[in-house]
Amino acid sequence: MKNTLRAALLPLVLALAIPAAAAPAPPRAPAPAVTVKRIVEGIRAGNGAYAHLTRLCDDVGHRLSGSPQLEKAVEWAVATMRADGLENVRTEPVMVRRWIRGAESATLLEPRETPLHILGLGNSVGTPPEGVTAEVVLARSLADFEALGEKVKGRIVLFGNAMPAFDARKGTGYGETVGFRLRGPKMAAEKGAVGVLIRSVTAHSLGSPHTGVTLYGDSKVRIPGAALSVEDAELVARLIEGGRKVVVRLKMEARDAGEVPSANVIGELRGRELPDEFVVLGGHLDSWDVGQGAHDDGAGVVMAMEAVAALKRLDLRPRRTLRVVLWTNEENGGAGADQYAEDHRAELDRHVAAIESDMGGFKPRGFGVAMADKAAEARAVQSLGKLTALLKPLGATTVLPDMAGADVGALVEKGVPGMLLLVDESKYFDYHHSAADTLDKVDPAALTEATAAMAAMGWLLAETPARLDAAPAGKSARPAQGVKAAGGPAEKGKR
Amino acid sequence: MKNTLRAALLPLVLALAIPAAAAPAPPRAPAPAVTVKRIVEGIRAGNGAYAHLTRLCDDVGHRLSGSPQLEKAVEWAVATMRADGLENVRTEPVMVRRWIRGAESATLLEPRETPLHILGLGNSVGTPPEGVTAEVVLARSLADFEALGEKVKGRIVLFGNAMPAFDARKGTGYGETVGFRLRGPKMAAEKGAVGVLIRSVTAHSLGSPHTGVTLYGDSKVRIPGAALSVEDAELVARLIEGGRKVVVRLKMEARDAGEVPSANVIGELRGRELPDEFVVLGGHLDSWDVGQGAHDDGAGVVMAMEAVAALKRLDLRPRRTLRVVLWTNEENGGAGADQYAEDHRAELDRHVAAIESDMGGFKPRGFGVAMADKAAEARAVQSLGKLTALLKPLGATTVLPDMAGADVGALVEKGVPGMLLLVDESKYFDYHHSAADTLDKVDPAALTEATAAMAAMGWLLAETPARLDAAPAGKSARPAQGVKAAGGPAEKGKR
Repeated sequence: MKNTLRAALLPLVLALAIPAAAAPAPPRAPAPAVTVKRIVEGIRAGNGAYAHLTRLCDDVGHRLSGSPQLEKAVEWAVATMRADGLENVRTEPVMVRRWIRGAESATLLEPRETPLHILGLGNSVGTPPEGVTAEVVLARSLADFEALGEKVKGRIVLFGNAMPAFDARKGTGYGETVGFRLRGPKMAAEKGAVGVLIRSVTAHSLGSPHTGVTLYGDSKVRIPGAALSVEDAELVARLIEGGRKVVVRLKMEARDAGEVPSANVIGELRGRELPDEFVVLGGHLDSWDVGQGAHDDGAGVVMAMEAVAALKRLDLRPRRTLRVVLWTNEENGGAGADQYAEDHRAELDRHVAAIESDMGGFKPRGFGVAMADKAAEARAVQSLGKLTALLKPLGATTVLPDMAGADVGALVEKGVPGMLLLVDESKYFDYHHSAADTLDKVDPAALTEATAAMAAMGWLLAETPARLDAAPAGKSARPAQGVKAAGGPAEKGKR
Repeated sequence: MKNTLRAALLPLVLALAIPAAAAPAPPRAPAPAVTVKRIVEGIRAGNGAYAHLTRLCDDVGHRLSGSPQLEKAVEWAVATMRADGLENVRTEPVMVRRWIRGAESATLLEPRETPLHILGLGNSVGTPPEGVTAEVVLARSLADFEALGEKVKGRIVLFGNAMPAFDARKGTGYGETVGFRLRGPKMAAEKGAVGVLIRSVTAHSLGSPHTGVTLYGDSKVRIPGAALSVEDAELVARLIEGGRKVVVRLKMEARDAGEVPSANVIGELRGRELPDEFVVLGGHLDSWDVGQGAHDDGAGVVMAMEAVAALKRLDLRPRRTLRVVLWTNEENGGAGADQYAEDHRAELDRHVAAIESDMGGFKPRGFGVAMADKAAEARAVQSLGKLTALLKPLGATTVLPDMAGADVGALVEKGVPGMLLLVDESKYFDYHHSAADTLDKVDPAALTEATAAMAAMGWLLAETPARLDAAPAGKSARPAQGVKAAGGPAEKGKR
């Protein structure tokens, strides 16, 4: 492929007036399927993503926004991308809010005393030092919650809705289940509650609670929220449903430690013809403060890093620039995503696509795509259908509309085609935001296949002359910048 | 069936000289299959085992030997058996050693500081208040451990052998995995180690460690032992295997609080013809001090209680006495089992069989049987083959030799045919001895089927004129008391 590369660089070479006498006659570029095969084989041979993930998980561990571990992860990512030969490796400063969990506990006091397994919700306020002690009322649904009416006042509300088991047809059920984690504390505070417990958002539990962000919005009164393990949530729910009075004491030292500096980490493989057009491959470098953030989103981070490093190793320099972006603060703020969109606003019309992987390091299935302009999105779906046909050996041929990673949401709003790597998500939420999101849950072979899918798609998007959302003749390919995608694409991704 | 019962009681009635003029002509006893069907239908209609398990799990919770919760469980069992109409309901005192976990923690100090998820091993000694801090050495096998030699001295040993995933052909792999939990601290202390960590004995983990007893035997030097979650054990192992120096600080307040009173709980359905011959149905009332002891062994407890209560409800009084025995202290001593064998030594030759359920409340598969006299055991296997043929509607037709519950081991040593209810054990060790052994893991329908299998087998053993181990003509049916079963049957059960 050296020859091909040189041939592709020829116009540039000539323009720079470097003697070209020795250049061979330009050979025909290999068919895309040939290059994809080479990429897949190169990534399978390297197994580099898993090696990187091992270092991130074991040497750094989890890495919540503002923590020393996240800063260590930033340093690691910069050093690793440089060692892998990526270009323009750098950090871009982002201010993030630092939330600190502190010690936390919950105790069932009535009808009998026993400790409960909790994880405070991310961004939750803490309790007074003596805790919040109150009777617990149960809502398994929004209708239940509304029916409680005045009974919420002065009480702790347990949102006990259960996440269904994964269903290949219906999906994970996460989106339909997570609402009370996101908005339960706000909703309950508005009705006079003093605290909120949720049933951990997972369909399978072996005793560990699952955290995740809660959103107070503009609420003036903020009450603490925590996730119970499924086991303990079911215990409390059974007691209440059996007519018992349940009293719980919730103690949380959680606090907001203000704004602190963090960074997005960036590395590139510069395009040979259109270096100022970009295809972004990325994941988020931050994680929750439990487990190792292996699937969420260490996997996405190392896939993007290795996808581009492998192309570099294979001497495959695409037409456009491939840019690795490792966002900070996806889990509890999204400041990294917003800052990237702001810092790069002048070049967003030259962002051909931005793919995030944030559903774990599982076997790839295909890609989702979201655009603010739904007509353009429909065209992008069609274009992707042709490209993913080349990914059949990886099983990554599914293309879904209206779906992008949370960190590319801010780009989608500004007209960029945002994408999400689709994977086998049947086990993702078993580990998600819990002590179980660790390296041992990552199958190296699956991670390699997912990395190959990212690399091949990145290559195809950066190499194919036509843009993904190319308009029919006579129409603008992009809507005006700032058009907001219907439904809010960030909400459609996962958090 | 009232008539049948009366007919069966007739000899007794006549002997007591109560006017029998109104007694109808004795009808033929129904075929065993008819009675089994009636038992199964009666238990399916009642669903009483699950109702009892709910109360045990939710109102009492876990119940370690010597804890106030176990005493509460004893009271609950007595009251419940009385309310269910069982006869001779009583407690039999047992002195048990009380082990108290206290606060415990482990911290990875090198190569980076992070808390580890542990559960101290049952009966472990504690550490000094400042903890035990040492470099960790890894043994994934006995060969590894032996190869460590002098390197064990002054170190913490991590026994990192992994339990395989359940295999329908090979079984659970528990027996082959648990050795280092039982004997690791003793073995490591003999080589000069200062502490032991084990990889939790489970094939599937979502972040929670699994406890279980460790045995010091007659060791003079006792060192603390704790189970790491699989996730943390793999982290430490990967670091060591990658050449890193790993230092851990282990802090445990664990202590032996001496001997305290506890009790076995007993209830009966007296036999109509041979009330002084017994078939024991039982489980152990104690549990570890995590989760709810739902499968281990709340399920066995409620199965035995409900099996006999259902026969009572159905007016099915068998030829021999059915005796429910709820042993205390199975998990960390076996004092209840020993005491029962001692208290009832005069009637052990009239114990026709003793069945324990201690593999959880899963779908039944059949029964194991163990006898000290292996020729008699072979006969018992044959007899059981005929009886379990009647349990085909329950799928409980498997009969395995050389297998009995841990609490009937002491009876087996004294010549009693010991048995174990066999169930689908594919998930048992996922929950076993962990925070995940909770009511939500018990499928009410499976528990009902298992209860029906216990009830039907109990009925058949108590009703069938011939004993399970009936000898060919001219031979003694029982070996001399005190013959020890080869291999130690208690070791063959689970603990």
